[in-house]
Amino acid sequence: MTATPAVPATPAVPAVPATLLHLDCSASPPGESVSRRLTARFARAWQARHGTAGYRHRDLAADPVPPIGAAYAALGVRVERRGTVPLADVRAVAASPGERDEWSLTLPLITELRAAGTLLLGVPMYNFTVPAALKAWIDRVTFPGAFSDPVTGRSLLAATRVVVVTARGGAYGPGTPREAFDFQTPYLRAYFDNLGVPAEHLSFVHAELTRADDVPALTPYRPLAATSLSAARTALAGLAAA
Amino acid sequence: MTATPAVPATPAVPAVPATLLHLDCSASPPGESVSRRLTARFARAWQARHGTAGYRHRDLAADPVPPIGAAYAALGVRVERRGTVPLADVRAVAASPGERDEWSLTLPLITELRAAGTLLLGVPMYNFTVPAALKAWIDRVTFPGAFSDPVTGRSLLAATRVVVVTARGGAYGPGTPREAFDFQTPYLRAYFDNLGVPAEHLSFVHAELTRADDVPALTPYRPLAATSLSAARTALAGLAAA
Repeated sequence: MTATPAVPATPAVPAVPATLLHLDCSASPPGESVSRRLTARFARAWQARHGTAGYRHRDLAADPVPPIGAAYAALGVRVERRGTVPLADVRAVAASPGERDEWSLTLPLITELRAAGTLLLGVPMYNFTVPAALKAWIDRVTFPGAFSDPVTGRSLLAATRVVVVTARGGAYGPGTPREAFDFQTPYLRAYFDNLGVPAEHLSFVHAELTRADDVPALTPYRPLAATSLSAARTALAGLAAA
Repeated sequence: MTATPAVPATPAVPAVPATLLHLDCSASPPGESVSRRLTARFARAWQARHGTAGYRHRDLAADPVPPIGAAYAALGVRVERRGTVPLADVRAVAASPGERDEWSLTLPLITELRAAGTLLLGVPMYNFTVPAALKAWIDRVTFPGAFSDPVTGRSLLAATRVVVVTARGGAYGPGTPREAFDFQTPYLRAYFDNLGVPAEHLSFVHAELTRADDVPALTPYRPLAATSLSAARTALAGLAAA
């Protein structure tokens, strides 16, 4: 006679702490930067709900990501030639101290992004696209295979939520005369799409005409700038509560 | 009786030496970089015609342009608030040693670009757009009013010829499945258009599928890659002879 099999306990839902990776890249300090002020609002609202344990802030202007060098490119090529290399094995593929150094600068950024439940990006528009400071992070973190499951090939960012807060000196929204000069929003949409972030997890909040107080020619647009900023704050409050 | 007025001598055409500003930004050394090899070909052909006196090479990867800081942004805002400040007067507008330092890093780059009869850019595609190293140059050199006549507002780059040599790991040309992911060529076209470089002075030469030798999935495209590289060489020879 066999013992009645024990009813298996319902597996406890693992307590995954909510995590927010908050990146700013404006060259201007918080007092002068619309994008920094807006991301800070989102971060405070998020922390009020989730606490501070899972919060990580990285200031890409104050603490720049080092530019990728020849050894980074060589390591990337070597990894791509092999097809798929799990992240834990990349160091063993490195062929020189220079390549290992590049990997040491890169792996923590990849790990940080993979661990983020939410990625919050504060992005001023510089010369119609993202600042060099953000592009330096993109160029380093986007290592071959870094965000794909090495077995299935599936994206590891399929559950990641991305909130992009842009600040633009002029108006670049749909229907404006300068819409075709927006290489910031469509670019980031394409970039995260390629990484496997689903479109429905990607949100953009725009503060437009942020230079209306500085540029004489934009003076007539000050009311529109105020409306845009107010709408951005409302949209961010909604996203932070979601 | 008056002396017969002397026939005025035909004014001598001022001997403006031809100038070429050659920028590379690939993280890879010449032996590994398609964009560097192609721009070097153009530079050699140009030098064969015009000599070396007017030639200037800047390696934005080996000698990175320092990221713009808060003082750069503050100086830019102060200049924009005044409307139009001639380049020679910007230093007097700087309000702190930090702003003067930023200007000292910036003015030589502006002067170099204003002096260039031809700007040659070697631009690999990194993550669908220009490398951070080139964006750092763009973010610094594009100071308010730097390329406009302070009196007429006209572009000072209206006679500048720009030759952009791109190298792209995959295919992004018209009609390809990834055409919408090209934020490199349309971006640079918009950027130089905004600076006042006439469309007919702006040339793009593309080497596509440059990673066909490295990425296993691209192996079938090696013949196309070779054709693209060969066409790029031919196009550059034509542009150098123009």
